[in-house]
Amino acid sequence: MKILVINAGSSSLKYQLIDMDDESVKAKGLVERIGIEGTHFKHNVLGTDKEIEFTRNMADHTEAIAAVLEALTDKENGAIASLDEIGACGHRVLHGGETFKESALVTEESLKEIEALIPLGPLHQRANIAGIKACQSVMPTKPNVAVFDTAFHQTMPKKAFLYGVPYKYYKDLKVRRYGFHGTSHRFIAGEAPKYIGKAADDCKLIICHLGNGSSLSAVVNGKVVDTSMGLTPLEGLLMGSRSGDLDPAVLEYIMDNTGMDIHQMLNMLNKQSGFAGLSVSSDMRDVKAAAAKGDELAKAAVDIWTYRVQKYIGAYNVAVGGADAIVFTAGIGENDTQACADVIGGLAFMGVKIDPAKNVRGNAGVISTDDSTIKVLRLSTNEELPIARDTLAIVSRL
Amino acid sequence: MKILVINAGSSSLKYQLIDMDDESVKAKGLVERIGIEGTHFKHNVLGTDKEIEFTRNMADHTEAIAAVLEALTDKENGAIASLDEIGACGHRVLHGGETFKESALVTEESLKEIEALIPLGPLHQRANIAGIKACQSVMPTKPNVAVFDTAFHQTMPKKAFLYGVPYKYYKDLKVRRYGFHGTSHRFIAGEAPKYIGKAADDCKLIICHLGNGSSLSAVVNGKVVDTSMGLTPLEGLLMGSRSGDLDPAVLEYIMDNTGMDIHQMLNMLNKQSGFAGLSVSSDMRDVKAAAAKGDELAKAAVDIWTYRVQKYIGAYNVAVGGADAIVFTAGIGENDTQACADVIGGLAFMGVKIDPAKNVRGNAGVISTDDSTIKVLRLSTNEELPIARDTLAIVSRL
Repeated sequence: MKILVINAGSSSLKYQLIDMDDESVKAKGLVERIGIEGTHFKHNVLGTDKEIEFTRNMADHTEAIAAVLEALTDKENGAIASLDEIGACGHRVLHGGETFKESALVTEESLKEIEALIPLGPLHQRANIAGIKACQSVMPTKPNVAVFDTAFHQTMPKKAFLYGVPYKYYKDLKVRRYGFHGTSHRFIAGEAPKYIGKAADDCKLIICHLGNGSSLSAVVNGKVVDTSMGLTPLEGLLMGSRSGDLDPAVLEYIMDNTGMDIHQMLNMLNKQSGFAGLSVSSDMRDVKAAAAKGDELAKAAVDIWTYRVQKYIGAYNVAVGGADAIVFTAGIGENDTQACADVIGGLAFMGVKIDPAKNVRGNAGVISTDDSTIKVLRLSTNEELPIARDTLAIVSRL
Repeated sequence: MKILVINAGSSSLKYQLIDMDDESVKAKGLVERIGIEGTHFKHNVLGTDKEIEFTRNMADHTEAIAAVLEALTDKENGAIASLDEIGACGHRVLHGGETFKESALVTEESLKEIEALIPLGPLHQRANIAGIKACQSVMPTKPNVAVFDTAFHQTMPKKAFLYGVPYKYYKDLKVRRYGFHGTSHRFIAGEAPKYIGKAADDCKLIICHLGNGSSLSAVVNGKVVDTSMGLTPLEGLLMGSRSGDLDPAVLEYIMDNTGMDIHQMLNMLNKQSGFAGLSVSSDMRDVKAAAAKGDELAKAAVDIWTYRVQKYIGAYNVAVGGADAIVFTAGIGENDTQACADVIGGLAFMGVKIDPAKNVRGNAGVISTDDSTIKVLRLSTNEELPIARDTLAIVSRL
């Protein structure tokens, strides 16, 4: 069976067509500027030179999905002969709240529950729902499955997920730590044990998903016990454009001094902070290039990034009770070997050591020395395959 | 020389008269409800049964200081024959910003600089200034010294004190981590090395000041490298009535859902959160009593408290590069032996072990086993003596 994996953003839509017989990606593509003048469409069939790319205004996600299906079944540059080959659609959905502890078939009822979670992440959740509805509209007979960014973290204990605010805000408004990047953390939690010779249910991991958005998770025997993102993806590490951890009083202080309202403030903390706020760009590569040229503030920004990852590793080593492995993944984790070396450099006192000969880009697996007290791994994450796997598993039961 | 140490709150004033010949406290007292109907005054002369206590309205800190001096020189229940015996006044001041890296003589100029820092902590800073001005008014010939809660933390590196918000907010508005409880952390940083057989300038400490307000500091060779409170004393651990760490997006979410404004929100986070928000009382003793009776939420609150201290210790162990000692102090740290044992219990995987025979209330010094990988200490803090010492040192140079 082939599964169409959809990741719908507010004005974008990413997709992959995955053949579940061998879990290979057949085709993938990206629609950008949906609902904005100059919608851009790009489509590739993997392992071939088949490509479709054009600019044509699309008003909404339904038009975008229609274009995706047209491209997938295109006689010349398509990947499949007909839509019959697509067994189901798997959707990345931001927020499962406490309702969804695992992936779910989209039904009238579950869609209502997904819609009820809109307040917890309005922009993304609405976009994800638009992606689901577009598929329902264009392919009314195909089942849809929702895979939640938060679900893998639902095993956290109260001591990790409750904030220190009045309990009524948890009870009535569901204010708590949820965590995100769940599909990535889950994928890595499944892969890492294979590389360290331990069973997944007897393994303590600190997973560092480091990209433009970054989060760490502490995983014991396959279950998350803590993670650095919170009610929203704003909390935790220094990110491309997000502030991460902050004294909550900073919001009042800046608002009082600038006249910003709370929405402008959160917009600033999400979109103009982190590397983008401290330095030249939201991309750590640009910031490092500036640091290399002697920009002191760029150097400080990189130091802050590194230091926060180190502190979280220290904290999560306590959370898991002594990690078997620290795993680096995602954009920075997979590609910036120096960033990983710098993080681990600060853990030398614990006897954690990277082997420079193994710390090579593209080299998946253990990158620590044989005598390192905690193994260090670099693994490629995959946020689409777990969506396709869950979708297959759920529709196979129908 | 005798030094009068003043800690002025918005409607209260605590004082100690310390004889610097032997650093002994001669008298101490507390004025409450200043400017409120029913001001209450209490005064004790230590080592005697001399006591003064009465209720009489006082309009401001000047009237309160006048009452303090009256009591100190009272023929029957006083501590000194005349005000001539008081050499100087030392004032606890909340915020030294980046201006004051150590204690300072109060002059026309330095008072202006202290006043310029009011925006960083309006309530406390104004009260501290009122205390200084009251002493200037009632004892115009005595020198006053300001001792800042933030000063000891001014050695933090950028990577620890800069937040991930746009840099202009640091440059223009001085938004950064300052840290508080500086006098306590400094006192303990001076005492702890004596108990572990190390020189203060060759010693890595994690100091846990755990009381109704709580903060941890990471201290390397006598200098703070990180601390858990931030721009304000709201950040960090779970406290009596303060939330501590929080996804900044929680503020927007609760405000949108309740109609609270940012000031009501911060008031709630500072005064109705922490133990008070999650459980029956801001006092951990009450929360523990409820937990002992089977109150699940009280138990969860205590678990959150313990877990956060543990995670911060893990993070700060990385910050200092492997601690020589973990030190417990302040109300909870000095008295709740079980709380300390619970915190250290979570560090067993690191080889840190408390010796139950040594973990006794009132037993100052090492409380870990001989083979503990990191020493654990319990020490009594003293937030007044460092103020008196600095005051003496500064006025001695006049």
